[in-house]
Parts: sequence; C-alpha cells; structure tokens
Amino acid sequence: MAFIKSEIRSGVYYDSVVLMKLQRSLSEQPGVLDAGVVMGTDANKDVLEQSNLLIDEVKGAGANDLIIVVKGENEASAQTAIAKVDELVAARKSGNVDQEYRSKSLESAANRLPASQWVLISVPGRYAADVTRQALGLNKHVFLYSDNVPLKDEIALKQEAARKGLLVMGPDCGTAIVNGIGLGFANKIRRGPIGLVAASGTGLQQVSVRIHQMGGGLTHAFGTGGRDLSEDVNASTARQALDLLSRDPDTKVIVLVSKPPSPKVADELIEAARLVGKPVVVNFIGYSTAMRKMDNVTFVTTFDETAELAVQLSKAVNHKDLMSDLNLERFSSGQRYLRGLFSGGTLAYEAQLILKDYLPAVYSNAPLKKELRLADSLVSKEHTLIDLGEDEFTVGRLHPMMDNDLRIRRLEKEAGDPRVAVILLDVVLGFGAHADPASELAPAIAKARKTAEDGGRYLEVVAVVSGTDEDPQEMTSQIQMLEDAGAIVETSNDVAARYVGRLLRSIGEKDLSATEHPMVSVNLSTFKQPLAAINVGLDSFTESLVAQGAEVIHVDWRPAAGGNEKLMAILERMKSK
Amino acid sequence: MAFIKSEIRSGVYYDSVVLMKLQRSLSEQPGVLDAGVVMGTDANKDVLEQSNLLIDEVKGAGANDLIIVVKGENEASAQTAIAKVDELVAARKSGNVDQEYRSKSLESAANRLPASQWVLISVPGRYAADVTRQALGLNKHVFLYSDNVPLKDEIALKQEAARKGLLVMGPDCGTAIVNGIGLGFANKIRRGPIGLVAASGTGLQQVSVRIHQMGGGLTHAFGTGGRDLSEDVNASTARQALDLLSRDPDTKVIVLVSKPPSPKVADELIEAARLVGKPVVVNFIGYSTAMRKMDNVTFVTTFDETAELAVQLSKAVNHKDLMSDLNLERFSSGQRYLRGLFSGGTLAYEAQLILKDYLPAVYSNAPLKKELRLADSLVSKEHTLIDLGEDEFTVGRLHPMMDNDLRIRRLEKEAGDPRVAVILLDVVLGFGAHADPASELAPAIAKARKTAEDGGRYLEVVAVVSGTDEDPQEMTSQIQMLEDAGAIVETSNDVAARYVGRLLRSIGEKDLSATEHPMVSVNLSTFKQPLAAINVGLDSFTESLVAQGAEVIHVDWRPAAGGNEKLMAILERMKSK
Repeated sequence: MAFIKSEIRSGVYYDSVVLMKLQRSLSEQPGVLDAGVVMGTDANKDVLEQSNLLIDEVKGAGANDLIIVVKGENEASAQTAIAKVDELVAARKSGNVDQEYRSKSLESAANRLPASQWVLISVPGRYAADVTRQALGLNKHVFLYSDNVPLKDEIALKQEAARKGLLVMGPDCGTAIVNGIGLGFANKIRRGPIGLVAASGTGLQQVSVRIHQMGGGLTHAFGTGGRDLSEDVNASTARQALDLLSRDPDTKVIVLVSKPPSPKVADELIEAARLVGKPVVVNFIGYSTAMRKMDNVTFVTTFDETAELAVQLSKAVNHKDLMSDLNLERFSSGQRYLRGLFSGGTLAYEAQLILKDYLPAVYSNAPLKKELRLADSLVSKEHTLIDLGEDEFTVGRLHPMMDNDLRIRRLEKEAGDPRVAVILLDVVLGFGAHADPASELAPAIAKARKTAEDGGRYLEVVAVVSGTDEDPQEMTSQIQMLEDAGAIVETSNDVAARYVGRLLRSIGEKDLSATEHPMVSVNLSTFKQPLAAINVGLDSFTESLVAQGAEVIHVDWRPAAGGNEKLMAILERMKSK
Repeated sequence: MAFIKSEIRSGVYYDSVVLMKLQRSLSEQPGVLDAGVVMGTDANKDVLEQSNLLIDEVKGAGANDLIIVVKGENEASAQTAIAKVDELVAARKSGNVDQEYRSKSLESAANRLPASQWVLISVPGRYAADVTRQALGLNKHVFLYSDNVPLKDEIALKQEAARKGLLVMGPDCGTAIVNGIGLGFANKIRRGPIGLVAASGTGLQQVSVRIHQMGGGLTHAFGTGGRDLSEDVNASTARQALDLLSRDPDTKVIVLVSKPPSPKVADELIEAARLVGKPVVVNFIGYSTAMRKMDNVTFVTTFDETAELAVQLSKAVNHKDLMSDLNLERFSSGQRYLRGLFSGGTLAYEAQLILKDYLPAVYSNAPLKKELRLADSLVSKEHTLIDLGEDEFTVGRLHPMMDNDLRIRRLEKEAGDPRVAVILLDVVLGFGAHADPASELAPAIAKARKTAEDGGRYLEVVAVVSGTDEDPQEMTSQIQMLEDAGAIVETSNDVAARYVGRLLRSIGEKDLSATEHPMVSVNLSTFKQPLAAINVGLDSFTESLVAQGAEVIHVDWRPAAGGNEKLMAILERMKSK
C-alpha cells in the first residue's frame, strides 16, 4: 500500500530550478510513485491536494516554507527517498553553467565584463527590486524576468531608469530580443527591418515567430512587462522603446502589442506612434477602434494579422508619403477651419468618422453624436460638415446630387469666411445624378477660390469624385474641369478625408510649441554593439546566452542571510543605522 | 435698385423637377438677379432668408404652399418674370419622357408591361405608402426612393412584402443595381461575383464605384433604406437580400454596408451572415468589434477597405474550407466542453477573445471579464481555459514553459472528464524554454487520448506550436512527435482557436432544431431575367432606365384631387363608406 513521507524546511532559499530538479530526482528514486517539492503557498498546497499528496503534516506550512512530499510503494521506499534530499540537492546544485562565467556579486561581474549593457534578473520577486536598483546604479539596462514585484517598486525603478536613459523591461518580462540575441524565453528570429514593443511575453513571441515564418525579420523586440501600460506606470518603458525604434535607422516598421491598456494610456501611446514617421502596427488585443487606420498607424486584432501586416509593410519600398510636405505657409494666420458640403449622406458620415481622429470636433446637421449637432444647419461653426441630402433640405426640392443650387450658394458663403482654410465636397456621378455636375461646380469653385484670394487668403478645395469610367458623365472630363478650377480631386473618400484631416491638424499645431519630453533618450549606439550581459538568477538564461554566442557573466546570487526573513530584517536594521 | 416680387400658390402639386426648372427659368429671364421656388417649410424659408429672398409677403406660407420669389434689377423686370410662371411651367412640364413610355396609372402600366418585376416610387413621402401598397398588390418588388415616409408605414409595408416574398428597398433608398441595371442614383458597374446589401445610398455607390475601379464587379446591389437596421424594422429587407444573395450561385462574396445598427440587430445579422457559406465583408461604419474576423465574416471600417477586401476575396479560387466537414460523429453524446491548458498568458488571452465569438462562455483563472473567473483554478467548469503561467502557479515553481509537470497532471485529469471533447494547448519553443517539450507532452497526450478511448469517447487534442525553424528545439521534430501522439498541430494560435471554436459550436448546435424562418424566400429566378420596371415619380429615373436599355413604363402620377388636402380627405371618407 502506498505510503507518504514529508518534510518541511523553513528559512532556506533554493531557486526554482533546484526545486524542479529535486522533485524529478525524487520521483525517479526506486519505489517512488510520485513526489512534490513546492513552497507552501495556498495555491501550491491546493496543487498537492489535487495529486493526493497534501497530508496533514504539511498543511501548516507557510509561503516561505519548503514542502517536500514523497509517495512510495511502501514506507521504506518513501523513507529512503526523502532521506536523500540533501544529497540530491548537492548533486543538482552545481548546474550547467561553467565556472568561468560565474561571479559572486553584481559589482564583480560588472568589473569582469565592462562591455555589458544588460543585467538579466530572475531572482524571486521580493528580492528583485533591490537587484534592479543595483543594476541601474551600475548604468545597465535591465531585463527583469521576476514576477510578484510590488507596483510601487516598478514605478520608482522605471522613473529612475527614464532619468538615466536606461530601459527596465519588466517586471514579469518573459522575453526580448536585442540586436539578434534573445533574453529570457525567445525564439531564433531572422534579422530584418521590423521593431517590436510588447507588454505581453507570449504576444511578443508569437508575433515574432509568425513574422519569421512569413519571411520577415526583426531589429529589436522589447518587452515592457504586463503592467507597463497601466495608468500607474504610464507606459514608461513602452514610450522609451517606441522612441528608440523611431530613431533607429534599421527599423522601418514598428509593432506595438499589448492587452488592452487603459484608454488614457492607449490614446497617448497612439498619439506618440503617429509622430514616429514610420508605419506602426498596433495590436491592443481585443481593443476596438472605430477606424482601422489613423495616419501611419493601423490597428489589427490577432497575432497573425499583426505579423502579416508588419511583413507586408516592411517589404514596401518606402513610406515617404507619410511625411509629405503640406505647404502650410500658403494659408494666412486666421485660416483654420474645414467646411464640408456633401450631397451623399454616408460619404458625409464616413468623412466625419475619419476626421474624428484628426480634429477635436466636427459639427454637422447629421453629426456622429448629438453634442456635435449644429444649432442652425445654415450657419457653420468652427469645423463643420453639412449633409445637404438630409430630409430638411429635400422637401419640395431635388436631391443635391441632381440640383447644385443650394450647395453653390453655401460654397460662396463659406468662401467669404476668413477663418475657412479648406472646403471638402463630394461629386457623385452615375445614372440619376446631374448630367454634368462639374459644369456648375467648377465655376463655383473657381469663384470661391478667387473670393479668398481677393481677401488675401488661400482656399484649398478638395473634391471626392465618386464614379466609374463607364458612367454617363465621363468621369475623366468631370475631374479635369474640377482640377482646372483649382480643386484637388480624389476618387476615394477615405484618402480625401485623411488628407484634409492631416492638413487641418497641422495648421492647428503650427503655433503650438513642441511637447515636453522629460525622459532622457536611450542611447541608440549601445544597441548596435554586440550584446553583453550579466545574469542574476536562473542558470538557464545564462546557458541560452552562451548558446547564442553572447558574452555573459552569471552571478551566483543568494538572498542575504540565506533567505531567512528574521535574519534579513535584522541585517536591514543594522544597515540603516 | 433691386426689387422683389412674390407669389404663393396653395393646394397645388408640382414635382420637384418642375420646381427646379421653374426656378432656373425664372433666373434666366431678362433683368432677373435671383429667384426662389420652394415649398414653404421652415427649412426652405430659412434658405430663402440666407439668399435675402424671404420678404414679409411669403413668411406666412405653410409647408404645403408653393412660394415663388423673383428678385429683379427693378420692379418691372421682377413683375414681368413672375407673370410668366404659368407659361414657364407649361413649357417645362412635358419633360423628356417620350409619350410611348407613359401611362396614366400603375394598374394600366402593369397591364402594358406584364414582365415588369419592379416599381420605382419617388412621389412625395406622404403619398408614397399608398403607391407602395398598390405595387405590392400587383406582386411587384418596390424601389422606394421617397423620403419622409412614416416609420409605421415602413414596418407594415415590409411585413406585407416579406409575407409575399417581395422586396421593398427603402423608403429613402437612393440607389440599387439589379441584374446590371441601376435604379435611382447608380453608377455603371462591371458585372462580377460580388453582391451588395446597403442601408446607405452613397455607401452603396462609393463601395460599388471603388470595386469597379479596383477591377471587381457586381451581381446585384440592394439598398434597404436607412431605417431598415433599426430595432423597429428589424432588418427586414437586409435579411431578405442576404438570403437572396446566399442562394444566388453567381454571387461569390457578399458585402454588407450600414451606419452602425442597433447592437441587437447587428448581432442577429452577423449570426445570419455566418450561416451563408460565402465570405461576407461587413462595414458597419465606425462599429467597433474586438476581433476583425469571425468565421467567414470580416469587419472593415471604410469604403475603400470594403471594396479592396471584397475584390480580393472574389478573386480567390474557392472558399470550400469555410464549410469543411468537422466529423462530429466521433464524439459521444455527453462530450461538449473545451479545456485549454496554456503556458503563454497572452496566447491564452487571444484564444479566449477568439472563442468569445463561438462559445457562450469560457471560464478561466485569467478571464476576459470577472464574471468568467473560475472559483477554483484547479477545478474546470464547462468551457475552461487555464493560464498555467499566472503568478498563483509560479511561486517557487518554474514557469510552465520550462516545467511541464503541472500541465501534464492537469491534462490527465481533464481527459478523465466525460464531458470534455477538446483539449487545446500551446507549446512554446525557443531559447529559455524547455529543451524538448514534446518528449514529455506527446506521451501525456497519447495517454490522455487513450483514457478517453477506454471510456468510449473521442478526445480531440489541438496543439499550437509557437517557434521557428531556427529554434534550438528543432520545430519539425517537435511537431512530428505531437502529431504521432494524435494531436492536431497548428503554428498559428488564431487558426487553432478558430478551429476549436467552430468544432465546439457545431457540437453544441448538433441537437438544436433549425431556426424558424417566417419569411417567404424571394424568388431568385425573377432576378435572372432582364429588368423591367414601372416608374412612378421622377422623370429622370425613367430616362435613366431607358438609357440603360431596360424596359420601362412611366406613370404620370398626380396626387388625388391635385394635392388639395381638404378635397383628398373628403375623397378618402367617401372611399371608406
């Protein structure tokens, strides 16, 4: 009959690898049926119970106590196995890391490897903040694998790092790839022009793996830790990483992955992403946006889509158009508003939706939400977009696709307003519509531009022509007439609205001073040198770095006083005296 | 000095084309500076005021009165012009429609053109419901351009149409294309394999125009009217159109366009779209969804994206995989639940997000929302997905990417549960991870499947392997070992989660009876015949049909009693006696 023997060890520190190996060695002893070696947390005791290993003797163990349980075929085999614990620990403890890579302290490791830019930290959570502080003191970037690190420590450490131009990836950062070398859990990914920032470990891994499978490659992939995009931490690491990748000439496309952040942090990060001058693919997993695109930023919803789009964008020849010159000097100082005069209701609606990402508010007689409704449809207010096909205008009157009269009268009026910079209108062709709309609209556009010019202003008129080459109106000649009148013509409402949005947004920002940047930029050049690192914690991370050909020193870290809490508290009190 | 003369005409009906032409003719009279010819609604009077044409004499006119205003260089020219009104109306009234296409009533038109499947109606809103009722009585589909039609009439008319297997597009339906012929406002679009359903006129036009510009083409494009997707109307026309296109063998891809519908109607329509067995592109403009894809349904946000994706899908060779056989017979009757055992937190998160679109609820220790949190992480409930990398499991224990022990114990337990049909797990490769995870997981999977088999069940095990061909573990041999153990292996979490979702959803539906369909299917064959129509209202719609080579009869419609409200009321009372 099966028989269970147990032991509890208090105030002793073993790292998790040692515990796993001990459990495995015990299981492999003759006559042993099962074994459990865990710290005595409630969750771990529940797990023991599931395996029928939670006997009364160990139920009283606490979170800092080590529980060892062995189930043998009989009492003798259980007893024999458990008596071997110390011997088995000693045999396993040496690990696989060669002595030449080992150091006794972080300081001595840093002295031995002055080229090291990084410290990897995977000690238990309650010790991790201290080790991180030491690493920052040595001017090293930190890869902080440890979890269970208090939030207030994370905030303080990241603030200190930002002041020094150093990165703290984590806590609970499982993975990163710097200059081709994987830290923590990381796949072997082809080098290439895509840079990654992820607040999600397996998110980073899965996206990078799919990028590789699809033929793409990475410059760097930075983890931030899962809490980085919370309001408390305020995306400190993500902002630094985004800034770094925006300055890195080898990175052509940037990918941002995170579980849905707080709306405030998301908005700010997206704003930052819109200013990097490179395409950015954002996967805030399950974070819904009204529009899929916003300037250079595209939102995706799964890891596969993320990888697919990033690879596609990284293969595009160039993205210069993103920063094309808008020639803002043509406008006089008072000009700042849009007036949209639409005949198509849903075109008007789509234009408002797109403009929402560029302008603070667009008023309308058919607004996106009721706070934006014009008090009087005939009187524009700031940015205004009118749907002239709304019922209020069509009682006893033809639809504006057939009758241009009302629109031309409104165009004349808006052109006389010195605050107006841009007029946006649609011209819908096809059967049923006006037989030759440009013959009436083109002269009206020319006249409107002349009115502005006479007033010392420049009026940009953008027309969306919606039609096909087989429509009865001859689309090419309609477009030609509008262009001859000085209008910019697009056949896509999407493209036209985004152009107008960028233009007006830039006009609005012309006079604003540059945003404050309290953070010190991370020095890009250290990321171009071969990676060298100090590893404090899991042996396997050192082994990985060696396998990848990176220079590394392993620190044989032990908690002060061997992890005995009481002794540590006494030591702490002595230090502070 | 400019001088304004005016006239008010009460109880007389003129159609909008006549009014526009009259205004234009008056403006062109010698010495005339401006003219206004409008029904006396408040909005129209405001418009007159904007043009400085609203003199005191016409301010008292009501919505059913016609206002005529002429501004002349002097009194004589204004007076001369306004005296010519009757003459100008008479000259313009005949219109451009040849006598041969004209009929005095809908009945006589139907007799003259028995092949007509359609009646186009563009009479003023208050008369439109009556005319529509007549058309349905004649068993014709209706294209209802008129706006200002009461909601209760729309509901009643659509219910009647649905009972008869007829379509009512509208009210306020601006556009449609049936079998290559445009109704109302419509562009000339290439024929092709894309079918459109739109609750938005210019949305339909812009998408169809962009499809044409990108080289694609249409079978049919159905308008529904802007209110069709409200809860009151409950997408009556959209459902019919979707059903029709799903049965049409020439339609390979379906596009659905609407301003954001009510969430209830949206959910139901999306459910319907998932059952059509063809790719469906949905643009509920600005309607945000957590996931971009759901089976055969893809969500897009702009008209350009809509057209681009539809054209791309229409060129794909086939979409058979959408309906691939799931072989549900393998499972025994009690099996219905998923158990997901993940080591990657964000992989677990993405899988839950994707599964949300397939399964009623997936419980987890790291759930999407707190109502789905497991009371006990060690005890699964219905569909359950566990993140074994959560902090609760990693105190003093290695991460499950390095240590498979906990996962294998859980796998054994789940395999013994007779309600479990599918196990989903991830296997993350790369530096830092377990050196040979399949060597431990594959035997465990084989054992789990054997356990189920011994219990008379079939257990599907799906594994997501996240890695690259350059990873230290040799991905291909890892995959081979898992497959040899009977697992289905994917390298995409997305693909794996969707497969599992479809499988479990189908198992759940296996025993449900088919949904009730109270609506009578619209007869597909009438849509394959050349379009023939009766037009009641705007001359220009008849002209368009003639120009497109369609057979058409134009009805010279007048309101009863010439539009005199009092007389009409008397006539109505006499009829009902």
